[in-house]
Amino acid sequence: MTVLGPTAPRQLPYVAPLPLSAVRFDPASLLGSWQELNAAATIPHCLDNIRRTGVLANFSRLIEDDLPGKFVGFWFADSDLYKTLEAIGWEMGRSGTDQWGGVLAEVADLLEQVQEPDGYLNSYVQGSPDQERFARLEHSHELYCAGHLLQAAVALHRGGGDARILAIARRVADLVVELPHIDGHPEVETALVELYRETGEDSYLRAAEFQVESRGQRTLTGGFGPQYFQDHLPVREATEATGHSVRQLYLAAGVTDLHLENGDASLLKAMEQLWDSAFGSKMYLTGGHGSRHRDEAYGDPYELPPDRAYAETCASIAALQWCWRMLLATGQARYAEEMERALFNGIAASMATSGTAFFYSNPLQLRTGHDGSSEDAPSERLPWYDCACCPPNLARLLASLHGYAATADASGLQLHLLSAGTFTADSLTAVVETGYPWDGDVLVTVSGQGELAIRVPSWATGAGLTVTGAKVLVEPVPGEYLRVSCDDGATVRLTLPMEPRLVRADERVDAVRGCVAIVRGPLVYCVEQADLPDGVLVEQLRLDASVPVTSEQGDAFVRLRFGAIVRPLETELYKAYEPDSQSGDPITVTAIPYHAWANRGPGAMRVWLPTSR
Amino acid sequence: MTVLGPTAPRQLPYVAPLPLSAVRFDPASLLGSWQELNAAATIPHCLDNIRRTGVLANFSRLIEDDLPGKFVGFWFADSDLYKTLEAIGWEMGRSGTDQWGGVLAEVADLLEQVQEPDGYLNSYVQGSPDQERFARLEHSHELYCAGHLLQAAVALHRGGGDARILAIARRVADLVVELPHIDGHPEVETALVELYRETGEDSYLRAAEFQVESRGQRTLTGGFGPQYFQDHLPVREATEATGHSVRQLYLAAGVTDLHLENGDASLLKAMEQLWDSAFGSKMYLTGGHGSRHRDEAYGDPYELPPDRAYAETCASIAALQWCWRMLLATGQARYAEEMERALFNGIAASMATSGTAFFYSNPLQLRTGHDGSSEDAPSERLPWYDCACCPPNLARLLASLHGYAATADASGLQLHLLSAGTFTADSLTAVVETGYPWDGDVLVTVSGQGELAIRVPSWATGAGLTVTGAKVLVEPVPGEYLRVSCDDGATVRLTLPMEPRLVRADERVDAVRGCVAIVRGPLVYCVEQADLPDGVLVEQLRLDASVPVTSEQGDAFVRLRFGAIVRPLETELYKAYEPDSQSGDPITVTAIPYHAWANRGPGAMRVWLPTSR
Repeated sequence: MTVLGPTAPRQLPYVAPLPLSAVRFDPASLLGSWQELNAAATIPHCLDNIRRTGVLANFSRLIEDDLPGKFVGFWFADSDLYKTLEAIGWEMGRSGTDQWGGVLAEVADLLEQVQEPDGYLNSYVQGSPDQERFARLEHSHELYCAGHLLQAAVALHRGGGDARILAIARRVADLVVELPHIDGHPEVETALVELYRETGEDSYLRAAEFQVESRGQRTLTGGFGPQYFQDHLPVREATEATGHSVRQLYLAAGVTDLHLENGDASLLKAMEQLWDSAFGSKMYLTGGHGSRHRDEAYGDPYELPPDRAYAETCASIAALQWCWRMLLATGQARYAEEMERALFNGIAASMATSGTAFFYSNPLQLRTGHDGSSEDAPSERLPWYDCACCPPNLARLLASLHGYAATADASGLQLHLLSAGTFTADSLTAVVETGYPWDGDVLVTVSGQGELAIRVPSWATGAGLTVTGAKVLVEPVPGEYLRVSCDDGATVRLTLPMEPRLVRADERVDAVRGCVAIVRGPLVYCVEQADLPDGVLVEQLRLDASVPVTSEQGDAFVRLRFGAIVRPLETELYKAYEPDSQSGDPITVTAIPYHAWANRGPGAMRVWLPTSR
Repeated sequence: MTVLGPTAPRQLPYVAPLPLSAVRFDPASLLGSWQELNAAATIPHCLDNIRRTGVLANFSRLIEDDLPGKFVGFWFADSDLYKTLEAIGWEMGRSGTDQWGGVLAEVADLLEQVQEPDGYLNSYVQGSPDQERFARLEHSHELYCAGHLLQAAVALHRGGGDARILAIARRVADLVVELPHIDGHPEVETALVELYRETGEDSYLRAAEFQVESRGQRTLTGGFGPQYFQDHLPVREATEATGHSVRQLYLAAGVTDLHLENGDASLLKAMEQLWDSAFGSKMYLTGGHGSRHRDEAYGDPYELPPDRAYAETCASIAALQWCWRMLLATGQARYAEEMERALFNGIAASMATSGTAFFYSNPLQLRTGHDGSSEDAPSERLPWYDCACCPPNLARLLASLHGYAATADASGLQLHLLSAGTFTADSLTAVVETGYPWDGDVLVTVSGQGELAIRVPSWATGAGLTVTGAKVLVEPVPGEYLRVSCDDGATVRLTLPMEPRLVRADERVDAVRGCVAIVRGPLVYCVEQADLPDGVLVEQLRLDASVPVTSEQGDAFVRLRFGAIVRPLETELYKAYEPDSQSGDPITVTAIPYHAWANRGPGAMRVWLPTSR
């Protein structure tokens, strides 16, 4: 059975997604293990917390007279339920599980009863006598919530064939298409496009177009200004990434989705400029977006503080979703590379190894003495959040992750995210064996015939290649696609260089001046206080770039070892400048993957390390 | 006539303030010119804007049936009026002006009519049917507003003899002393102590004690947590500067004021520890406090980003007020030095040369491409703010500034803020002639006799001294007081070294790693885009520390010239690290005092400059 994934263009894009059912990650691979953990731990945890925190009760109290109390949580809490439903939909499509049939029936019953005759459905507005529908769209998130319902309905329909929630969502959408307003939080754009793809109903696409084309009239006002709401400029002119980062990135994904269906080249051009702004001057090394806690927003260009990185989990997920659509529209490797960066670093770091605790913000530095008492900057992952947008967002991404790994076009198959697994296009199937991202050896065995393209990361200078039964069309070049014309039974062995590398930032990123980060393959590394000897603080380390960094296979991941010196702590906040030799005692220090940090109790951490020169 | 200044301890402190009437700054001195500008421009501008923005109408609508509309502005807007009244009080005491008699009568009439029979007075609560008095003190600012009324009343009584507003304030205070609650925004503590000093009424001091001793019970809750409200720990245990910086600093000033009256050594000890935290690890080079825009709060230790410095004007003013009280309690030079740092840099920078435009936040860096559309981070000073706490706070400080310059004790006179002017203690008068802070030559002529102490800044290594008719008791040592026993007619000539200096921050201040700031005397300097040749961005400069920095007297201030190289702009956000020679084209660059920045249109600015090594 064919199960379509989270983007299923009706117009032929540059490269086309594979159905979810045409890809399977090896469960022992890193990406595969995350999907297993998501199914076993994260989705159930989300369901438990949605029930515990009253998200379901917000609906049921509207139809049961005996339920006490008021609406609880944030006014957009409905979306937490919908994102979890979406995760269930993709997971049903992935594994065929039917374990959540009871929950789905319960929710469908509830939504059917709460939904008003004209299709309106929003437990906050319906349950708040002082709220009028669609009256305060700059803040109300009504279309945001509706969008997540639409996406859940599509996922459930594709993954499990559920028709009831799709019908509910269509009634909501039929109301949205009549609406002459936009929402303060973009999200419904992509959802409407996807619902159009699933149903063929043109009015949904036209509504998405209305939502996109109506941006920039400055009709949305409030505390943080029009940028915050993505209403400062029309989308073709809004080519600097700004405002609330999740809103910016969801909108960009929606605009790109619209382009994928209507082919409007001016939309793609604007998105390319916006992408250059976001990924060229406002993105963290970990693929995080959003420098500011105040309004969860992008900062000025090169304003990228590691300690106060907001880098919301949802923003990295949204960035991945946008990049995916840019990849479909253009076939360019840079979009896939940024998906991989976000996935293995910013997104992966947001989840504990247990699968049941999460970061909302994802800093690249935690200081000795950090006050982690506030939910916006905790010292460790938390089981749940008052604003719980991130955990179910992660669940829906992970359940559908294999849908983002590969594409097909008329000539064959393209592999964008390297992972052990099986990838099937029309004319050929690729079985990938690799320990990537821990190991750079990638062996692909092809059945059927056609062209196989494998993305070569931009850092993979000197990648090796051996093929049998295949003809090399394009040699492996960093940042391009290796292209091989394969006969049945061909093998392709690509060997990526996995030596640890030191990277630095553009000199305008003041916050990490004089620092380097250690990366290996696609993984950013960090130093945790837990790996330092007593009496040495993370803040005292200066990396000695003249000492080679070495790798060491551990149980769960590859550890790195690097040379550093230990600087004495100073006692004056400001003092006379003297050229300084940065001397100190030599030490060898362990670094671990950034995504694995904060799994050993609270403690200081750094990605960016000052050098000793 | 003796006019007491803004702190008039009833208990004898370590050193005692001079009456305002015993000090006069030379109007041509920098501090004197600010006072003249304040009187001529800033106070009238505050009065205009208070009227324009409806602050007075918030009161008058409560007694006039024909006035339309609702309460306007922030719920604590009453305090903007009160701070302006306080400024008028001090200015009347300073200059003897009676130009604001009409306004004072108008306001007194208004307040008398609005004040309820039991003394309650708050135009927001009284004018909002859904507000109950003292019911939401974590947010309502009722005691904050009351405190500013008390302080205004004291200033008007001391400066102009106004008895009506003092009587209104006492009725408010008599209600406050009965209150078993604390306020989310400390401010009333110092005000109650001062009202006690002015009236001798013990219950006001006891109420201040209650306010101080009741902190830390975590009864104040809300979005930003107990630290924000200064309710996380009892004051003797809350020894790390944290939470909303103005609240932290006002509370600290109040605790210190209480110590000045009740002599509780445990309070002073806690304040000394808190001071070390705030000034030793959380203060900007400019004397700014508060690293975070999100909650206007202190960050973790050494979290001091120059670009996103909040460094609220009110926080620097509060820091000065706290340091002044610590100085009175201990006589230690470090407190006076930090007053001077804040005054000449963070505080001075908040006001335009016109006296009628202001910064609320005071960053140490503005990037090329900065989005200044938000009031919390504008590119230029604004004439007024929706939250207008800072401009009238500045006005009240400047009007009373000469009250913070000198003290007396049994042996004689202590000069803490160097300025041309006249300073009179019981037994001696010092006439100071100097161009300080532009010039390091300080000539003091003494009439009468006694001990004269002059603070020698900690940066003044190699200060010169010549005396006639006086005996040197303590030579000039940086960071200490020069002490001279003077006969009538004695002269003391202190020569402070005014060579420009390069300073750097503790290595833990990651945000300015590899950077230096240029300072001269007490003034921090900065580079503005306006002083660079076309095609060179502020971000491209690397200061060459091997080239001597030179000074150049300009019309309004001393300019500095330093050597730098110009780095090419980079095109990749992240790239492979290679040890780098930081080469570039040499250039000579002008720096101006930080406090004078942003008076030539919007443009990039930096205090901290990367070095070329």
